[in-house]
Amino acid sequence: MQRYFYDEMLTSEQFELPKEIYKHAIVVMRMRSGDKFELVTPDENVNVMELVTVEKNLAIAKKVDSFIQMTNLPVKTTIVCGLSKGDKADFIVQKATELGADEIIFFKGTYSVAKWDDKKRAKKLARLAKIALAAAEQSHRTTVPAISYCDKLENLKLASAQYGMVAYEEAAKTGETTNLAKLFEQLKKESATKPVALMAIFGPEGGLAPAEVQLLTQKGFVTAGLGSRILRAETAPLYLLSALSFALELR
Amino acid sequence: MQRYFYDEMLTSEQFELPKEIYKHAIVVMRMRSGDKFELVTPDENVNVMELVTVEKNLAIAKKVDSFIQMTNLPVKTTIVCGLSKGDKADFIVQKATELGADEIIFFKGTYSVAKWDDKKRAKKLARLAKIALAAAEQSHRTTVPAISYCDKLENLKLASAQYGMVAYEEAAKTGETTNLAKLFEQLKKESATKPVALMAIFGPEGGLAPAEVQLLTQKGFVTAGLGSRILRAETAPLYLLSALSFALELR
Repeated sequence: MQRYFYDEMLTSEQFELPKEIYKHAIVVMRMRSGDKFELVTPDENVNVMELVTVEKNLAIAKKVDSFIQMTNLPVKTTIVCGLSKGDKADFIVQKATELGADEIIFFKGTYSVAKWDDKKRAKKLARLAKIALAAAEQSHRTTVPAISYCDKLENLKLASAQYGMVAYEEAAKTGETTNLAKLFEQLKKESATKPVALMAIFGPEGGLAPAEVQLLTQKGFVTAGLGSRILRAETAPLYLLSALSFALELR
Repeated sequence: MQRYFYDEMLTSEQFELPKEIYKHAIVVMRMRSGDKFELVTPDENVNVMELVTVEKNLAIAKKVDSFIQMTNLPVKTTIVCGLSKGDKADFIVQKATELGADEIIFFKGTYSVAKWDDKKRAKKLARLAKIALAAAEQSHRTTVPAISYCDKLENLKLASAQYGMVAYEEAAKTGETTNLAKLFEQLKKESATKPVALMAIFGPEGGLAPAEVQLLTQKGFVTAGLGSRILRAETAPLYLLSALSFALELR
């Protein structure tokens, strides 16, 4: 069933479809009276809605059911990526949303060629928020990841009960194969009894500078290899999220 | 270091760069005499080559070192994907190559909207082979996955010592969370003592028809869910490969 997010709670019997949802449900998907869709409200509930009125520029639905669905990763996961060129940020946001990221932060790394100046940044972030929303609807999530920009890697800080890891190519090259598994074991154990979070950092194309890795290590981030091949900047976060889902959700 | 594949063994002291490698190394990367690159030969050895002569349309290198590198997944993995629209096949080939797939097969599923007619097919496959080659070079692999087309799902057969799995959305919806972990445990155990293979099947956009899943189950394929979100057709194979690498390469 088609799913949409709505940023307010349902307060009356009748729900008038907002413009964006009307455009997609009625114009694109050609839904008609009697058709159903899902509406996720800020309480993360999934409300099953049935269209009762469909007119030009006006559509009204009523709630016929509601349920709770667990679609978040067992660990609140923040993906932090260096700025890369082209549409790589779009790609990362779409795929990381599908794979369960709770927050996505972009930063300008030492080796980043791409730049988001102040003016461009707001537009970029608005565009990425739209991509995250569409991907969250499509992958049937009940939350939409927040997207933001961090000016300096120095400003990133681990919260309490938040673990940190850095995907480091050099770690992979030297055959480092145990850190990620150890970290996930720990996350699995702790998340069973209390809320735990993970912040995972990935360099831009060209990777992280040694000084950046050192800075992060001092802040408590653990370097980890992601298998025995060299992954592109936009592929590494997807590896991490897939492996995390496998290690913590499938057993 | 830049890596290239060469489909013959090195037989003499002097290696004249073939046209394609010349174009990339000399014209695009602007390598000059004294610069080094890696050349992977059919024995999967990585040969370190140093340029000794660089002229217009002629470049000669000599071998200065060679080494063996393990970049393949511990299990020979075949990814089988239903045809999807647009550039999704390009995407799957590039990412699955980075993530270690040994073979990639496309098939026309019951719900496939895209079609590769006979004429188009050869062109498509040649294009995908190029994408696989570039991705294998870029991710520093020592083998390039074979890309092919399968006309009928019925024709797919598991070889001996080859395990089969089908990513099935319905399995995920009903909360099936144990099959993939069980399968990977088995692969891990067996691959320690003998060569083992995996064939993993993914539907096109729109998924697999129940009859297709039934056919595959009868052939010995196990259905498995891939976490608690609905993944797009092109994302599911990347999840599988990432999880497989994590489960078998990182410990």
